[in-house]
Amino acid sequence: MTIDLNKLGRAAKRASYQLSQLATDRKNEVLCAMAQALETRQTEIIAVNEVDVNNAKQAGIKESFVDRLVLDVKRISAMAQGLRQLSQLEDPIGKVDRAWVNHAGLEISQRRVPLGVIGIIYEARPNVTVDAMGLCFKTGNAVMLRGGKEALKTNIKLVEILRQVLVDSDLDPNAVQILTETSHELANKFMGLTEYMDVLIPRGSARLIKAVVENAKVPVIDTGAGNCHIYVDASADLDKAIAIVNNAKVQRPSVCNSAEKLLVHADIVAEFLPRVAAKLAQSQVELRGDERTCQILGDQCQLASEEDWDIEYNDYILAIKVVGSVEEAIDHINAHNTKHSEAIITNDYTNSQIFLDRVDAAAVYVNASTRFTDGAEFGFGAEIGISTQKLHARGPMGLHELTSTKYVIRGNGQIRE
Amino acid sequence: MTIDLNKLGRAAKRASYQLSQLATDRKNEVLCAMAQALETRQTEIIAVNEVDVNNAKQAGIKESFVDRLVLDVKRISAMAQGLRQLSQLEDPIGKVDRAWVNHAGLEISQRRVPLGVIGIIYEARPNVTVDAMGLCFKTGNAVMLRGGKEALKTNIKLVEILRQVLVDSDLDPNAVQILTETSHELANKFMGLTEYMDVLIPRGSARLIKAVVENAKVPVIDTGAGNCHIYVDASADLDKAIAIVNNAKVQRPSVCNSAEKLLVHADIVAEFLPRVAAKLAQSQVELRGDERTCQILGDQCQLASEEDWDIEYNDYILAIKVVGSVEEAIDHINAHNTKHSEAIITNDYTNSQIFLDRVDAAAVYVNASTRFTDGAEFGFGAEIGISTQKLHARGPMGLHELTSTKYVIRGNGQIRE
Repeated sequence: MTIDLNKLGRAAKRASYQLSQLATDRKNEVLCAMAQALETRQTEIIAVNEVDVNNAKQAGIKESFVDRLVLDVKRISAMAQGLRQLSQLEDPIGKVDRAWVNHAGLEISQRRVPLGVIGIIYEARPNVTVDAMGLCFKTGNAVMLRGGKEALKTNIKLVEILRQVLVDSDLDPNAVQILTETSHELANKFMGLTEYMDVLIPRGSARLIKAVVENAKVPVIDTGAGNCHIYVDASADLDKAIAIVNNAKVQRPSVCNSAEKLLVHADIVAEFLPRVAAKLAQSQVELRGDERTCQILGDQCQLASEEDWDIEYNDYILAIKVVGSVEEAIDHINAHNTKHSEAIITNDYTNSQIFLDRVDAAAVYVNASTRFTDGAEFGFGAEIGISTQKLHARGPMGLHELTSTKYVIRGNGQIRE
Repeated sequence: MTIDLNKLGRAAKRASYQLSQLATDRKNEVLCAMAQALETRQTEIIAVNEVDVNNAKQAGIKESFVDRLVLDVKRISAMAQGLRQLSQLEDPIGKVDRAWVNHAGLEISQRRVPLGVIGIIYEARPNVTVDAMGLCFKTGNAVMLRGGKEALKTNIKLVEILRQVLVDSDLDPNAVQILTETSHELANKFMGLTEYMDVLIPRGSARLIKAVVENAKVPVIDTGAGNCHIYVDASADLDKAIAIVNNAKVQRPSVCNSAEKLLVHADIVAEFLPRVAAKLAQSQVELRGDERTCQILGDQCQLASEEDWDIEYNDYILAIKVVGSVEEAIDHINAHNTKHSEAIITNDYTNSQIFLDRVDAAAVYVNASTRFTDGAEFGFGAEIGISTQKLHARGPMGLHELTSTKYVIRGNGQIRE
């Protein structure tokens, strides 16, 4: 381990003070200059990326993984476009959340400020390098990146280009830094950099996130797993229910807001289950059901184990359970969910309210697909992840969630009695 | 270790679901009933407390510590009064922070909800038991308490009384639980109860807080140390400056918002330092200065070491440094402070703005004492602590800071394209 993390941390903290004072226009100009630089230097990026990609192929890494590693002209253009979009979004920094005069005549206002230094730990998708840097920069935060080893050369090149733009803009290049070594020893020290790092955000697989949550000393935002449920109530419009279940399961099964479990009211199982099973069969979805479900679906379905109710498949698999009431559905969800996204499909007003009130999750839906839990779909314009914890941020995190506040207090000689 | 923490955690989580649905009026009635029960049963409380107090005295524990442990009629009445005050405060639960319709026609609203289960780790002040429970209950959170061993019998009695009120009110008594064993082994497991506990808040000494921040797996709110500075600018009104420095240092030196460091602009040291030293001498404040300060103050002052700039004394000690500009003061503060409370005393408009913008702290003051960083002084009516971290909450934390949000989304069959 040759990297002096404390030195990098100090440099990031220093850069963060400069960043925190930048005017919005200035930040937007730099974001656009970064986008331009990525496009201008795309040949360099692609050449370095080819080395990473070839090494990964030679190491026998599976194709879907290698695909995420590849940068081509189109993907570089998409990264650049992402930065330009960020430059168009409203800057949350400097907004005043509330202001008042206290009993002693002090004028107190709570002002939005950057978090300071944000650490990002991610895997082998080089677009995260640019994406995360853009979100942090727009919100006046310095960022320290630790990406996966397979993308290291690509990431170093990308960060070199971004830092050059900072230098050309008379800004401290340490606003963005990347660890040029990917050992676990260094990653562990990185997660313990409490003196300089204000927040750590893991982006990637459930395994990566779990490891960060368990090992970090720096406060973490858990952008964890999604064991999402759809409950189809007795009163549901079955056509809508089938369309929503199908969308939530098969539109993109690998992501955290896809549905993993289907709960169905006992009164409608005889009609609903064969119809939804037929629809899901078009996408070869494997069904695992409780006893009642298996009775109805026969060999279209295998018996679910107790563990099934807690698993996030991220695959073309759906487990189905029959319940007797909305309350039973809610109890099952609160006992097994990961507090991500849950939906009820119903035409019963009272049941919709009970479900919205009582289900414990970042996002609770009536008559819509769980796939909408997403910064872009919510209209945030950008997203750093989806928080499944309750502290600081819950649900899709946009620019606002990358800020903190500071109390600014003006007096005229007040002392405390 | 005989306590099954998972069982307690499950019970707390179950109770939290009931609590989250309680109407504000109902919560307020229960808080008042709890206040009444504490007063009605004060003889019982005092009898048990005497056992704790006598044991502490026999164990040779120092007097100031034993004093904090004692409950008498007056202190019990103060605890009851605190609960009644909480019943008067506005309930943040159920408020909608923002609401909008997205591109797909989904009606999205972000609603304030309880955090869920809050863990509190504290020392031997039994009033924290009632105080923390009251704040958590008002915000619909279940609370798991782990107090210091010296107050254990008292705490168990208090919690027994509070739980009886819950039972009498047809509510789940597991809304408040206390660990009846105070081993470090159990405390460590308590801090790792991630499956059931949503947040952990340490209350007490810097040592306790540091231990919790370092060992907890549950997300912690760091209510840490206060190495607070007052910078007296060249343009300051020296009478006001002396009054503020004196107030911030001696009004209550043991607390986190008292001043520990004084920075003085070089242009005014000859006049200001002897005057402020004379004032502080009235309270026997020990002065430690840099070379220039010691030259001026002579034997009123001893030479500060490098370590002094980072120490929170919590005592009648003040370290003094001479600086050449507001920028030098800011650089010193940002390098050595604990991000708590910082003040500039000035009559220069530009310098006041520079200081407010650039100092990195939860609360930044112009011409007022740092002692105002406090929930009651801010007008929050109640306080669970003062956060020195940037995630979730920063500065004094009242009821609002004990809440999270949930997105409530109403659709009409929407699926994601």
